[in-house]
Amino acid sequence: MSRKGLIIVVSAPSGAGKSTLCLRLLKKVPRLRYSISYTTRPPRPGEKNGKDYFFVSERSFRDMVRRRAFVEWACVHDHFYGTPKEFLDKMVRTGNDVILDIDVQGGEKIRRAYPDAVMIFVMAPSMQVLERRLRARKKDSEEVIGRRLLNARKELNYLPKYTYLVINDVLSDAADEIESVISAEHLRINRQKVSKF
Amino acid sequence: MSRKGLIIVVSAPSGAGKSTLCLRLLKKVPRLRYSISYTTRPPRPGEKNGKDYFFVSERSFRDMVRRRAFVEWACVHDHFYGTPKEFLDKMVRTGNDVILDIDVQGGEKIRRAYPDAVMIFVMAPSMQVLERRLRARKKDSEEVIGRRLLNARKELNYLPKYTYLVINDVLSDAADEIESVISAEHLRINRQKVSKF
Repeated sequence: MSRKGLIIVVSAPSGAGKSTLCLRLLKKVPRLRYSISYTTRPPRPGEKNGKDYFFVSERSFRDMVRRRAFVEWACVHDHFYGTPKEFLDKMVRTGNDVILDIDVQGGEKIRRAYPDAVMIFVMAPSMQVLERRLRARKKDSEEVIGRRLLNARKELNYLPKYTYLVINDVLSDAADEIESVISAEHLRINRQKVSKF
Repeated sequence: MSRKGLIIVVSAPSGAGKSTLCLRLLKKVPRLRYSISYTTRPPRPGEKNGKDYFFVSERSFRDMVRRRAFVEWACVHDHFYGTPKEFLDKMVRTGNDVILDIDVQGGEKIRRAYPDAVMIFVMAPSMQVLERRLRARKKDSEEVIGRRLLNARKELNYLPKYTYLVINDVLSDAADEIESVISAEHLRINRQKVSKF
């Protein structure tokens, strides 16, 4: 098998259930890996180095930027976040698919670096459901929820940059749908070696 | 549900197992219909009118051509074959997917009429396997087999007109793959009503 791996960008507004969906996919789909970002922010309770993020000092991070080790990086609330390039390239080369759980701006940068990346946008069935889910998490203040909803509207403007829209109503259905997208993308003629005939 | 149906073109060289594959898909995939062509050739033993083809007189056929009832039609060995347009349009409108088991020239005409048709090419794992399958059918003379193989090479030139290539090695796998393509195509943003958010 000389199949090339896929770079799969999954973006979603906060509350659409993207992270749970990605976790489920990683368990379900063979040869699917997760791209772990580097960050300079301190780990939150329960977060593990090398699993949720690679936690590094600002100095190391800047050094990686200089060495062009990131496909994309950004500064959010004074902390740096970056997607390491080497891991992505290695996965593609070895025929493994990589899923990137990333915001719309980061997704756009990935698409520029890898024009054949698979672009998937995940959304709740409606803004009302999104709001309900954000409240049900009981994680955010009213102010933060308001900001997240405003942000969701902005992120929806990026929809035309994506190829697939998966509505996360029932989690297992949404996971099946993304799995179909992954299978179908591997069947694209321009991803296959046609010279064999 | 206001989903639009898909027009799915499936082409393959003789011996790739396209017809068996289509039959299996029709049993397996909900809301999938088969586009039945009109023909002026007499039915072969076992063929049923309205199931394999609509068998009509040349006069009726010409009349349909005049009324622009066909998306595409062709004359092969003095017999006419045509794909009726009304059925396709009705299926798309009512959210049913239609599969068209059609040759590469016909497929190209369908794609021109329906630019968002899903184009799938089915092939045996290799030309050797294709040849072996043609022989195993014990249906054709050596001369006909030779002609079919030559034709297969010609049809492979049309590959770039197709979006997906499904290798029919194990029938059930190939059917699963086409099912994934159908699911994934429905998830494309340009096929969905995004205005709902």
